[in-house]
Amino acid sequence: MEKYISLAHGDGGERSHRLIRDVFIEAFGDSNASLFDAAAITMSSHKIAVTTDSFVIKPIFFPGGSIGKLAVAGTVNDLAVSGAKPAFLTCGFVIEEGFPISDLKQIVSDMANEAKKTGVSIVAGDTKVVERGSADGVFINTTGIGIYEPGMGCSLQFEEGDAIIVSGTIGDHGVAVIGARGDLGVTVPIQSDCASLNIMLEEVLRETNGVRIMRDPTRGGLATTIVEIAEDFHLTMKLNESSLPIKSEVHGVCDLLGFDPLYLANEGKAIIIVANQEKDKVLEILRKCPEGRDAVVIGSVIAKGKGQLLLETPLGSKRLLTRLSGTMFPRIC
Amino acid sequence: MEKYISLAHGDGGERSHRLIRDVFIEAFGDSNASLFDAAAITMSSHKIAVTTDSFVIKPIFFPGGSIGKLAVAGTVNDLAVSGAKPAFLTCGFVIEEGFPISDLKQIVSDMANEAKKTGVSIVAGDTKVVERGSADGVFINTTGIGIYEPGMGCSLQFEEGDAIIVSGTIGDHGVAVIGARGDLGVTVPIQSDCASLNIMLEEVLRETNGVRIMRDPTRGGLATTIVEIAEDFHLTMKLNESSLPIKSEVHGVCDLLGFDPLYLANEGKAIIIVANQEKDKVLEILRKCPEGRDAVVIGSVIAKGKGQLLLETPLGSKRLLTRLSGTMFPRIC
Repeated sequence: MEKYISLAHGDGGERSHRLIRDVFIEAFGDSNASLFDAAAITMSSHKIAVTTDSFVIKPIFFPGGSIGKLAVAGTVNDLAVSGAKPAFLTCGFVIEEGFPISDLKQIVSDMANEAKKTGVSIVAGDTKVVERGSADGVFINTTGIGIYEPGMGCSLQFEEGDAIIVSGTIGDHGVAVIGARGDLGVTVPIQSDCASLNIMLEEVLRETNGVRIMRDPTRGGLATTIVEIAEDFHLTMKLNESSLPIKSEVHGVCDLLGFDPLYLANEGKAIIIVANQEKDKVLEILRKCPEGRDAVVIGSVIAKGKGQLLLETPLGSKRLLTRLSGTMFPRIC
Repeated sequence: MEKYISLAHGDGGERSHRLIRDVFIEAFGDSNASLFDAAAITMSSHKIAVTTDSFVIKPIFFPGGSIGKLAVAGTVNDLAVSGAKPAFLTCGFVIEEGFPISDLKQIVSDMANEAKKTGVSIVAGDTKVVERGSADGVFINTTGIGIYEPGMGCSLQFEEGDAIIVSGTIGDHGVAVIGARGDLGVTVPIQSDCASLNIMLEEVLRETNGVRIMRDPTRGGLATTIVEIAEDFHLTMKLNESSLPIKSEVHGVCDLLGFDPLYLANEGKAIIIVANQEKDKVLEILRKCPEGRDAVVIGSVIAKGKGQLLLETPLGSKRLLTRLSGTMFPRIC
C-alpha cells in the first residue's frame, strides 16, 4: 500500500475503493451496514436525537487524545448531554494530498476504539481528497444519532436553588492543545480531558430525579455554556469562583499567558443542573467514574425571569459573565 | 454585520452565535429543532437510512449549481437511490478565515431552497473556522436520514435480461465543472445536471414493480458505478455504446481534452436496473419529469455468476470496463 494520500484516493475509483477497504473497513468492520453508502439501520424508538460536528483541531495528535478520539467523543457527548443514548455515527473525512496513511490509520483506529468503548456503531462514511495546500492535514465530520428512551431525559424546568455541577476540572483540553502546538514557548504538563461521558451521564439520568439540563462546555468554555443556558431559559445563575475546580498547572499557564480558564475548551466535562435535594446523589454517581472523580457543585440558580450569569469572588463581590467575545485560540476542536 | 469570516466566528462565543443567527437560522428557519445542537426528531418508521457526504467542489459556484445546492441534492440522492424517503439533513461547515459572508449567505440560501424543493428538513448544523490558507474557501458535510416505507425499496435480486436504464445524459456535471474552473482554456456551454431526484425516484418505486437496484453515478462516473454493481452482485452486464446519451457538447470537450464521458461525474442522474418487462413503464415515469426526459435503456444483465461489465461498440466488438483508475479531476464534488 502507498505511504501517502494522493488525489486518486479521492476520485471514487479503484484507489478510493482500496483506501476504504484497507483503512476504514479494516478498522471499523463491515457489520451489516454498508460502510460507505447509505446504511439501513433499525431504531428501537421513534424519537431520536441527531447532532453534527466538524473537527479541525491542530495538532491532530495531542496529549490525551487525537482528532479521531475527539471526533467520536465530541459527538457522543453532544448526544449524551441531550439525554439520548448514542447509537450510530457517520464520519466524513476531508484529507489533504500527501497526508501520511500511517497517521490516517492511527486516527481511524482511535475512532474505532472510542466507538467500541462507548457502544456506538459507525455506519456510514465518506472520504474526499483535496490538493496539497487546500486543507491542513485532515478534517473530520461526525454526525451522531441517539435514541431517547422513555423516562430518561432532562426536564428543562428550573427552580430557584437548583445546583450547578461540573463533572471535573476545567480548561484541561484548551491548555493541553495550546501546549501541544508548541508556538507559545511553554511546556505544559497537562493532558486533554477528551473522553466520552455517555455511560456516566446515562447512569445519572437513570438513578436520579430532578436533572434540569446537561451541557458539555466545549468551545467557549464553561462561562459561555452557562451564559447560553441562562439566556435561553431566562435564569439568573451564580458561580462561586472559589469552588471552580482548576488544576494548578492550568492556573499557572493561564496566569502566564493571560487566559481565563472559564473560557477554555473542555472535551470531557459535563455541566449538570439539578434539583438541590438531588445534588449529593448526582455527585456520588459522578465521583465513582474516572471521568467524574473531581465533580463538584460550582453554583446555583438564584432567580427566574432574567438571563444572566454572575461570578461571586471569594470576597463576596459579583461580576457579570458574558459569552466569549473574540477568539482565544482557533482550531481547539 | 461583517463582510468576511474571521476566526472569532468559529470560537463558540458571541460572534459564532451571531453568525448562526444571522446566516443559518435566517435561511433554514428555527422550527422545532434546535438548529445548532442535538435535534430531537420523531421518525415515522423504525427502519431508517443514513448517509454522509463531504463536498469540496471547486469552484463553489458553477453553471447549474453551487456547493450548497450540491450538498443537499447529493445527499438526498444517496438516500433516494437506496429506496428511502429523504427526511432530515444535518450540515457541517469548515470555512476559511476571510471567506466572504455574502458568498456564505448565497450557499446557505441555495441549501435552503433545495431542501424545500425536496421536502427535507435541515435539523442540526455546525460551523468551524480555520486560518487563512488552512482550507480552500468552504467545505460542507451533509448527513442525511431517510425513512424506509413498507412496500417501497429495491429487491437486489437480479435476472438475466434485466434492463439498465440511465435517467439522462452523462458527463454534464464533470464537463461543466472543468469548464468553470477555467484552467483548461476551453469555454464549455454546458450546465451541471446537479438536481435532487427523490421525487422522481419515489414515483418509480411506487408505480412499478421489479426495480432491482438504483444508484447515482457521481465520482467515478457511469462505468465505475455499474462495475461496482457487477462486482458486488456477481453479474455480467453489457452497455451498448451507441445508446449512451451524451450531449454533443460533452462529446466535443471529451474529444478535445481526452476524457472518457463514461468516467465523468454526474450529480443529477440515476442508474436503474429493472425487470425487462417493466422497463417501458419506468421510462415513461422518468420522461415525464424534467430531470428524466432523456432517460433511456443503455444495456442489460446478460449472465449471473461473474462480476464484469462489457461495452459493446456499434460494430459489435466488446471491451471490458473497469473502475476509474487514476484521478481525472480532483474536487469534482
